[in-house]
Amino acid sequence: MARMTILTEADLRKIVRLDLDAVACVENAFRALATLPVAMPPIMRLDIPEHRGEVDVKTAYVPGLDAFAIKISPGFFDNPKLGLPSLNGMMVLLSARTGLIEALLLDNGFLTDIRTAAAGAVAAKHLSRENSSVAAIFGAGVQARLQLEALTLVRPIAEARIWARDAARAEAAAGALREQLGIIIRATSDPAEAAAGSDIIVTTTPATEPIIQSGWIAAGQHVTAMGSDAEHKNEIAPAILRLADLYVADAARQTRRLGELHHAIEAGLISGDAEVTELGEVIAGLKHGRRSADDITVADLTGTGVQDTAIATLARDRARAADAGTVFEG
Amino acid sequence: MARMTILTEADLRKIVRLDLDAVACVENAFRALATLPVAMPPIMRLDIPEHRGEVDVKTAYVPGLDAFAIKISPGFFDNPKLGLPSLNGMMVLLSARTGLIEALLLDNGFLTDIRTAAAGAVAAKHLSRENSSVAAIFGAGVQARLQLEALTLVRPIAEARIWARDAARAEAAAGALREQLGIIIRATSDPAEAAAGSDIIVTTTPATEPIIQSGWIAAGQHVTAMGSDAEHKNEIAPAILRLADLYVADAARQTRRLGELHHAIEAGLISGDAEVTELGEVIAGLKHGRRSADDITVADLTGTGVQDTAIATLARDRARAADAGTVFEG
Repeated sequence: MARMTILTEADLRKIVRLDLDAVACVENAFRALATLPVAMPPIMRLDIPEHRGEVDVKTAYVPGLDAFAIKISPGFFDNPKLGLPSLNGMMVLLSARTGLIEALLLDNGFLTDIRTAAAGAVAAKHLSRENSSVAAIFGAGVQARLQLEALTLVRPIAEARIWARDAARAEAAAGALREQLGIIIRATSDPAEAAAGSDIIVTTTPATEPIIQSGWIAAGQHVTAMGSDAEHKNEIAPAILRLADLYVADAARQTRRLGELHHAIEAGLISGDAEVTELGEVIAGLKHGRRSADDITVADLTGTGVQDTAIATLARDRARAADAGTVFEG
Repeated sequence: MARMTILTEADLRKIVRLDLDAVACVENAFRALATLPVAMPPIMRLDIPEHRGEVDVKTAYVPGLDAFAIKISPGFFDNPKLGLPSLNGMMVLLSARTGLIEALLLDNGFLTDIRTAAAGAVAAKHLSRENSSVAAIFGAGVQARLQLEALTLVRPIAEARIWARDAARAEAAAGALREQLGIIIRATSDPAEAAAGSDIIVTTTPATEPIIQSGWIAAGQHVTAMGSDAEHKNEIAPAILRLADLYVADAARQTRRLGELHHAIEAGLISGDAEVTELGEVIAGLKHGRRSADDITVADLTGTGVQDTAIATLARDRARAADAGTVFEG
């Protein structure tokens, strides 16, 4: 007989939030990726063009964690016409010892949002200047808000600029974040102006043409691009990867195929077999991170299965402690 | 809010069985694979060597079916020491229109057993002689029993031989099948003798060295090998693929890598880029099947995502009709 805990999005929102524990669990996952025999198969991808649908399946086993997640992430882009959200998703948490299902996390993408924002915090913690106080956020969606919140967990952010293609959405995001974070935040419709003088730039858009141009990048800045999770997405000019003192991938195997790196390789600016620093290697001290206050650093985040396993395991632990969810015996 | 139906193994065993509907739904899935733009990504595989664990994830979208399954199949081979079964598994059924989860099928591998046996029936129906009356089954596990039952659905089987490495298990399987099917069934410890005079040979073992030798194969026989679902598994001598008049794969992309074909390619008996007939092509009439009563035919079954989507959709339909399962709103 199977015995598992079912956690709904509402259950999960009560017990998991973007906090330093979430950041630490994702940081540990990246460290493991660089130092332990992590098993992380290539992302499985299913396309259903008739309904503008796509499904990604990610998984990873991290030695030391007693469970691993298999995440199913559907995106069906005609859903809004039906009054449904485009994005969805759930995770299945299995015991790493027995393969038995421990929990179903019906999070509708909430845990992905948290682990993605946490990766932004980890990248900023290891690559941006310690005294970074000004952030520019590109995009006005859930990740835009979470990425700014994530930065405030690891850097003394006192001012932020929000740019979005839709000025009203940028204003709305800026207003909500001002209220939430209590720092100076303004919306702007000029992306170059948003970038100028920022210590940290984070792109969170579904752009397919670069928004950030290389001429805007100044010494000392750190750029995290987290929107490019598919071949056709591209947020920052490929030349930025060339001019950066340090380029860091979440997983080189993925960024060569999906991330900003992929576009720099296609543009002939970086060789397809160039050695690439991974975030976990910087965390583990195996490779250097920022070496001077003037360095330009770039983090290319495509989203990894180890992050999913890390956040799902955290959620399971919190659920146990809080006795949350519904136990199902079948 | 998500609304889904949870079906346990007990629920599923009440509504799905190995019958002509199951055979037809799997037959249709193979036909679709040959004639429609089916999306079937490569199998995702995660290995956890510390615990002798492995997980396969399969999926396929079949145009015309309004849902698709993502199947998670863990195998943890130290589980028996803990009093747990090695094999497990569940399927998540998602709407092909919206990507929303429709059902969780907590089948512990039951639906896989049914769809695998159904594929054996489909192969026999399209490749064996219509008057096939004698079957030889190699192996004594769940699939051995189901494969024989499957043959009786499509061919006038009047006699069967059961061979297994463990004679007691072969006797037990023979006894149970005699009771169930009411035909002449005997266990034998001599594999050559089991094969001799059989119209259909089905191998259902985890063998890593060939059990069936090429000298045992006679004109008119049909062989279905369904045990080889991983690189190291091998049930029939590679030379049999060479001497066969017709070799048929469930999915050539898989049998070139995992199936009996893989071993024939490795042995240099068949070229790695040789054109391969797929079962769906025979079903659809795009390629010929058996052309004479003397033909030797071989079906190489590795298990495909379209079979999972087909059986999961059938289970969902039956559950709806029977109002089975537990509705979960989250």
